[in-house]
Amino acid sequence: MSREARTAPRTAIATVCLSGALEDKLPAAAAAGFDGVEIFEPDLVASPMPPGEVRLRCADLGLSIDLYQPFRDLDSVDPERFAASLRRAEHKFGVMEALGTDTVLVCSSVAPDAVADVDLLAEQLHALAERAAARGLRIAYEALAWGRHVNTYDRSWEAVRRADHPALGLCLDSFHILSRGSDPAAIADIPGAKLFILQLADAPHLAMDVLQWSRHHRLFPGQGAFDLPAFLEPVLRAGYAGPLSLEVFNDVFRQADPARAAVDAHRSLLALAEATAARGDAAAPVGDPVAEPAPELRGHAFVELSADGSLAPVLAALGFARTGLHRTKPVERWEQGGARILVNRSGGPVAVAALAVESADPPAAARRATRLSAPRLPRERGPAEADLAAVTAPDDTAVFFCRTGAETDWTGDFVPTGETAAGIGVTGIDHVGLAQPFDHFDEAALFYRTVLGLEPAATGEFAAPFGLVRSRAVADAQRRVRLALTVSLLRRGEWAPGVSEPQYVALAVDDVLAAARAARAAGAPLLAIPDNYYADLDARLALSKERLAAYRDLGVLHEETAEGVYLQVCTEVLGGRVFLALVQRVGDHDGYGWTDAPVRMAAHRRRRLARERVRA
Amino acid sequence: MSREARTAPRTAIATVCLSGALEDKLPAAAAAGFDGVEIFEPDLVASPMPPGEVRLRCADLGLSIDLYQPFRDLDSVDPERFAASLRRAEHKFGVMEALGTDTVLVCSSVAPDAVADVDLLAEQLHALAERAAARGLRIAYEALAWGRHVNTYDRSWEAVRRADHPALGLCLDSFHILSRGSDPAAIADIPGAKLFILQLADAPHLAMDVLQWSRHHRLFPGQGAFDLPAFLEPVLRAGYAGPLSLEVFNDVFRQADPARAAVDAHRSLLALAEATAARGDAAAPVGDPVAEPAPELRGHAFVELSADGSLAPVLAALGFARTGLHRTKPVERWEQGGARILVNRSGGPVAVAALAVESADPPAAARRATRLSAPRLPRERGPAEADLAAVTAPDDTAVFFCRTGAETDWTGDFVPTGETAAGIGVTGIDHVGLAQPFDHFDEAALFYRTVLGLEPAATGEFAAPFGLVRSRAVADAQRRVRLALTVSLLRRGEWAPGVSEPQYVALAVDDVLAAARAARAAGAPLLAIPDNYYADLDARLALSKERLAAYRDLGVLHEETAEGVYLQVCTEVLGGRVFLALVQRVGDHDGYGWTDAPVRMAAHRRRRLARERVRA
Repeated sequence: MSREARTAPRTAIATVCLSGALEDKLPAAAAAGFDGVEIFEPDLVASPMPPGEVRLRCADLGLSIDLYQPFRDLDSVDPERFAASLRRAEHKFGVMEALGTDTVLVCSSVAPDAVADVDLLAEQLHALAERAAARGLRIAYEALAWGRHVNTYDRSWEAVRRADHPALGLCLDSFHILSRGSDPAAIADIPGAKLFILQLADAPHLAMDVLQWSRHHRLFPGQGAFDLPAFLEPVLRAGYAGPLSLEVFNDVFRQADPARAAVDAHRSLLALAEATAARGDAAAPVGDPVAEPAPELRGHAFVELSADGSLAPVLAALGFARTGLHRTKPVERWEQGGARILVNRSGGPVAVAALAVESADPPAAARRATRLSAPRLPRERGPAEADLAAVTAPDDTAVFFCRTGAETDWTGDFVPTGETAAGIGVTGIDHVGLAQPFDHFDEAALFYRTVLGLEPAATGEFAAPFGLVRSRAVADAQRRVRLALTVSLLRRGEWAPGVSEPQYVALAVDDVLAAARAARAAGAPLLAIPDNYYADLDARLALSKERLAAYRDLGVLHEETAEGVYLQVCTEVLGGRVFLALVQRVGDHDGYGWTDAPVRMAAHRRRRLARERVRA
Repeated sequence: MSREARTAPRTAIATVCLSGALEDKLPAAAAAGFDGVEIFEPDLVASPMPPGEVRLRCADLGLSIDLYQPFRDLDSVDPERFAASLRRAEHKFGVMEALGTDTVLVCSSVAPDAVADVDLLAEQLHALAERAAARGLRIAYEALAWGRHVNTYDRSWEAVRRADHPALGLCLDSFHILSRGSDPAAIADIPGAKLFILQLADAPHLAMDVLQWSRHHRLFPGQGAFDLPAFLEPVLRAGYAGPLSLEVFNDVFRQADPARAAVDAHRSLLALAEATAARGDAAAPVGDPVAEPAPELRGHAFVELSADGSLAPVLAALGFARTGLHRTKPVERWEQGGARILVNRSGGPVAVAALAVESADPPAAARRATRLSAPRLPRERGPAEADLAAVTAPDDTAVFFCRTGAETDWTGDFVPTGETAAGIGVTGIDHVGLAQPFDHFDEAALFYRTVLGLEPAATGEFAAPFGLVRSRAVADAQRRVRLALTVSLLRRGEWAPGVSEPQYVALAVDDVLAAARAARAAGAPLLAIPDNYYADLDARLALSKERLAAYRDLGVLHEETAEGVYLQVCTEVLGGRVFLALVQRVGDHDGYGWTDAPVRMAAHRRRRLARERVRA
């Protein structure tokens, strides 16, 4: 079968994944490219649109309604209560007919009167299915991870198998299955025709009550810790032919812009289909949604900083030479070793405007980014004239794919100045640190990872002076491109004097002491670190007196793990939200200095308050 | 011993409880009335103040330094690592000398090389204590709930007992003990002189990893679910004579104004001391910090709404009569049954400006509020001329203590109008609903509970159209005064069109259908509820056709539990952030209609968007 002939899987999203009212959610899902939706009952109940109007609205938007959900606590050992359930179901069947959807999710009961006997349960499911069938509808039965008696997929399958009714099948939800640590492999043995609907959700590993975990901390595929390709593969192998549907309860997504969240959600499914196909053992079509794998990355090509006039002297003091002037734009190219920084003097506070990565195949990388719903960068925003492929990341950073030295080389946009500098030993860009907007942290991590083809590299949490900060790094396997993303654990409020959530460029050096000395001698505004930090370092690590004195003198931060040492010297925040750091990795240290971040942040904040006091 | 002769316990707070840098935390603690602080090492390490300067700063502020903490992973089966620990400890002893504090917290090790053998552990603790004693210092050993071998207080006591060194004692932390479900009663058998320091924290019951629970979700005493009076009592009975010291790691407090948080924290200790004394079996002095128990409450005296001219017609349509005009201020008194609403026409959007409760002894209630650090209300803010005792709540609502009918009756401030109205059956104020500022939810709940003398009545969580909402009700035992507090689970961001976080006054009626009919006939702007809601109600509850038709016609929300039914009809939001509700309780329903809140909130939001569209 040719690649083109394979059908991409249909995609759907449960309305509960998105914030707002049904009127907000449906257009958001359609605009993001979903084929269908699951209507979450509470969304319908709160809506002024009668079900028939929802049906028309979805049709107008090109959305199918793949599921109505959830129907809770069907079965009962009390015949009267079961009769009431059937009555309730008939009402809901009427709603489904008006909606024009044929499948309802029935989840395993959590009630004290839930049926434990599998034969009685099968009998009750059969009775419901018989009524559904009479109206041309069908029942997808799901095991909740916290169901009273049915809480694993094999138990739900056992009940469905015994009930043996054509209008009765299974709903499989990756969260309910993977949160309990169940092995999904045996799903492949269930007849595909009995898999009515597949719900997908990722989640971080959390040691907590599974109901709370499920209701608050689900994530879109690829944003958590579950191995969803390994889950999806046996489902497809079984012959599942329905949509890949998302059901994600998440506190942040519930209050974020649904249009943005829907794009993020849709991207997650495309990336999941790609990762599943990449396993190679998927017998069933997962389509070819991304089409091209991420081309190899060969490093950071450049970082572009928007700036005023204050940045150039600092770059000079850090050993950079201004090697080029843009032919048509107020952009300068600064270089040292393998590190290139573009300074865009269009004005504004100092901020990271763009990242550029060296790609083995920039056009392919750009096509892939577009397939992953990355918005193309408006042409006028880029610093380069060359037809650089560029997209905009969720944090509004422009991302360029370059191949420096190739025919369409961006460097040709710059007139060489002939300026050179001895340098202070910077060899390249170690990584870029980007504070993320609160609503878009998980979206950003998935975006950078899938669009650039990076992998999760580290996660952490540290106590900044004004609240906890969560951090996540993504990098390529060879660690030639690294990004460190951070976000406040809670959205910042009013009380945070002198707070900035800075971005930074970490410059790789082989000898941070020599580099920092040279930088300081040239006038670089290095950040002073308190003596108390060095007293603590001395207590913990028994460093030599000479080394400690040099650290103290230069403001070196020293993070030591079993793998190695991460040494950094930071500049002050440069007139906006950016600082530069000189970073030396010793041994196999693969981290980002997060244990020292609170000290660094407190120092930056003191400097800022001091500056503000001077101005006032 | 006379009440006056008893000494109030000293109070202290660990700097980690508060947001900001040490420069922010120390003055906040002092201003809130704390006697001392625990210096949390990372706060010192990040500070530019040398320890000697911190000492002077604390002395200037009148704060003692009661503890330096924490010292981690002391013991080791590896003699070299233990030697390194002792070296590290000597460095920290130097810091303590400079700080002028004599006690350091050593917590049980979590390291793989931690000592399992209690005799070896005792030997290593003894060695440390010997070194401490040589410098006039002492060691408070604490069992972390997640310590590798020592994770209960009896294990820590066993090690300390065997080490048998005068410079070695225990640190007891209520979180570590109660989170594991340990019975604190046996603490009374430990010699009081061996209890070096007591750390207090509350927490909600959460089924999650205890380390994460501890690091993110601790609360000040009285804000969580732990029985802290039952914990404190045996500690005092053992003869503990040190400070009541708070150690609370909490995501919200970590980023909230430290001055506010410190006041909240100090109040929590006063209330805890009161509650412990009230147990009656405390042999030791807990002092007399509040002095007077909360006087009995007899109901809501009035609610004052700031308003423009739009409110009066609605009150009239709801059957209220304008019975009085304030002698000197633009304030009207409206009455119906036992419900009184003051309308303060000083202008501004409609909002709850004040709550007034009927108190058996207003002056005593006011004295108690002052002892609990409730800020006195500036005189000009009150609607009444009578010398009403009033304080300001954390959400900026004024709280009055009244005794209607007494000599200093506030009603005397109003000139009777002689106006009357037939009414629609409102009998009184059922409760008041107050959306809380994000940073002050736990503070507010504790404030209202302790200052008014209420008890926790219900907690909940529901999905509003723009994110999850947490709710907590407080009420007196007789349910004559009820308050329902709500807060967004995450601080709101930009995406929330038409969101309001309204306040409301719930008016008690005996027949909500009759009352709503009369109100509507008089032109009250009742909130329309979607048909879908009634279709769902019909499916779930099999109500009579007539009842359902009446509900649908009037917009009745029907919440049913095993205890009873809660029926409500709401008005639209009235020109600001307030709506009124007619509430009928059937049976023993003790709730607040939270299951219907999402439907109500979606309806309010639609109305608001529709109004905005009309205006645009």
